Amino acid sequence: MQQLTVELGERSYPIFIGSGLLEQRELFAPYIAGKQVCIVTDDTVAPLYLDALCRTLDGYQLSRVVLPTGEAYKNWTTLQQIFDTLLASRHDRRTTLIALGGGVIGDMTGFAASCYQRGVDFIQVPTTLLSQVDSSVGGKTGINHPAGKNMLGAFYQPRAVIIDTASLRSLPPREVSAGLAEVIKYGLIRDETFLDWLEANMQELRGLDHDLVTQAIARSCAIKAEVVAADEREGGVRAILNLGHTFGHAIEAQQGYGQWLHGEAVGAGMAMALDMSRRLGWIDAAACDRGIRIIALAGLPVRPPETMTPQDFVRLMAVDKKVLDGQLRLVLLEAIGKAVVTAEFDTETLQATLAQGHP
Amino acid sequence: MQQLTVELGERSYPIFIGSGLLEQRELFAPYIAGKQVCIVTDDTVAPLYLDALCRTLDGYQLSRVVLPTGEAYKNWTTLQQIFDTLLASRHDRRTTLIALGGGVIGDMTGFAASCYQRGVDFIQVPTTLLSQVDSSVGGKTGINHPAGKNMLGAFYQPRAVIIDTASLRSLPPREVSAGLAEVIKYGLIRDETFLDWLEANMQELRGLDHDLVTQAIARSCAIKAEVVAADEREGGVRAILNLGHTFGHAIEAQQGYGQWLHGEAVGAGMAMALDMSRRLGWIDAAACDRGIRIIALAGLPVRPPETMTPQDFVRLMAVDKKVLDGQLRLVLLEAIGKAVVTAEFDTETLQATLAQGHP
Repeated sequence: MQQLTVELGERSYPIFIGSGLLEQRELFAPYIAGKQVCIVTDDTVAPLYLDALCRTLDGYQLSRVVLPTGEAYKNWTTLQQIFDTLLASRHDRRTTLIALGGGVIGDMTGFAASCYQRGVDFIQVPTTLLSQVDSSVGGKTGINHPAGKNMLGAFYQPRAVIIDTASLRSLPPREVSAGLAEVIKYGLIRDETFLDWLEANMQELRGLDHDLVTQAIARSCAIKAEVVAADEREGGVRAILNLGHTFGHAIEAQQGYGQWLHGEAVGAGMAMALDMSRRLGWIDAAACDRGIRIIALAGLPVRPPETMTPQDFVRLMAVDKKVLDGQLRLVLLEAIGKAVVTAEFDTETLQATLAQGHP
Repeated sequence: MQQLTVELGERSYPIFIGSGLLEQRELFAPYIAGKQVCIVTDDTVAPLYLDALCRTLDGYQLSRVVLPTGEAYKNWTTLQQIFDTLLASRHDRRTTLIALGGGVIGDMTGFAASCYQRGVDFIQVPTTLLSQVDSSVGGKTGINHPAGKNMLGAFYQPRAVIIDTASLRSLPPREVSAGLAEVIKYGLIRDETFLDWLEANMQELRGLDHDLVTQAIARSCAIKAEVVAADEREGGVRAILNLGHTFGHAIEAQQGYGQWLHGEAVGAGMAMALDMSRRLGWIDAAACDRGIRIIALAGLPVRPPETMTPQDFVRLMAVDKKVLDGQLRLVLLEAIGKAVVTAEFDTETLQATLAQGHP
């Protein structure tokens, strides 16, 4: 088992990474303050791991909430199911919520924990590669609004993140690729050596080689923990974690949540960010092509959907959370391994990037 | 104008108290970070003060949200109107929300500010006595759930509280009494001298004598600020601010939100807390009777509704946010001016208190 820490003063918390952690009661117990636990999961993950986790937590007053699977349900109506269960079973302020599932479950459970009785504890138990390397760490929680992804939420840190790598065995190849999008992101924004390693090992990673995947998760979590510790509430540097996400969120919203996986949209979005960085002359064609090739190697799309026009992008990106005083800001690359958040680009270059995806 | 500070480190903020502050642009400007402002109010307050506040803030990109009036609308459906407006008008993370109205508007606007794009700034401009002396200060925000009052929300501090005492002129007498309930509360829990002063001046306060009301607001805010500074997230002492509220919330929920005003329910609830403290032998009959007399002097009910049974109370109090590990905790008085949060009472005494209200 590997252990990392997200350093946030009194809100610091550990990340545990290893195989079979779901069954280790002693990992959970120190992070459960009261007698009441509510496990939140979805109808894909429940048949696989819910019973096992309940056995691990035998003796607590346990509630379970099984939500419908997918980004399309990441909304207030679904969130209400968590609150209804908590209130019906009289969960008090000392309750601990446990998010058992992918990014959608983690984001919704975290937001529910932040709101319920003005805040109760929660633990992240991510079961997909994407949530293990990204969304379970850092305290971003929330739900979608029809007008924009993750528009409602809170910065609210978990008490612990418990990553059981054994849960990846059940993951479909498409979801493995989606998770690799965020892994590649860390290389592109912060660590060229890691990107080299990913390029060399991509086929084994897609095949879920246990040791290599564990290494990829640990390095990804370490980079994320470092960036979050430097800027918890995204006043500055944390925004680099959104490389490809402004384009990607627009793709997800335009296609309808759940049509493209988040990681797939981020893959195409990162390819667009590479393309735009090249157009601005910040990186050369070779670096751009290499970045795009690695994204493709992971089995991810590198162009936006053909049905999406530049006008669609402009409209949907206007509500991005990085917009400030009416000005769009994007995460772009000054070099492979060095991202910046910037509004320093001309409209023509942005338009060319958006049009490039549109035949 | 008087000025107090709520001392919360980097989240510290000022409370300004005076007549005509709604028109003083220079009071607002330092607490508005961006160009965008969204004023949230209700259809009772809007015709009275919305235009004036818009004039004061001329030059900002202003949006307005006018919600239906009352506790019955303090729910997610109403909250959505705020989010819909913010997104439709493309409000970004540097937006400032302004809550113009009573406690319901303040609680909902604060919660909306805490959630929108994971948190934007907000300013409290309370227009009722109750919100000026209590709910606008301290960062408790939230909405009701059918199963319990304020069950969903956040601790989220405003950037400033701007109390324009001129707005009290439009307040109906019933709302004045409701506000005085919270003013009396501060005397009962923390300051017997203030309670003496309230008793001596109650008729003038009900008549909204400007100087006396301003003094009452300032002393109330000072006590609240002190308690909140000591315990922002209600880990301990802050709970004494809930004297009478556990009984009161049950009354509000049982009667249907909005039937009894919050302050009226708190009045009856404080009378019950006084009665129970006497039954436990913690205060004597004279102190109890005096407390109840002052509540009645303010024009408030001192008994729960006749249609409400002890069973109703037990059922509704079981979801109180002060319940921990299945045990109900109440705010009771060890003396006039000294409140404690305690689970140290026998069921028979509680039952006798609940039954006393039920003929």
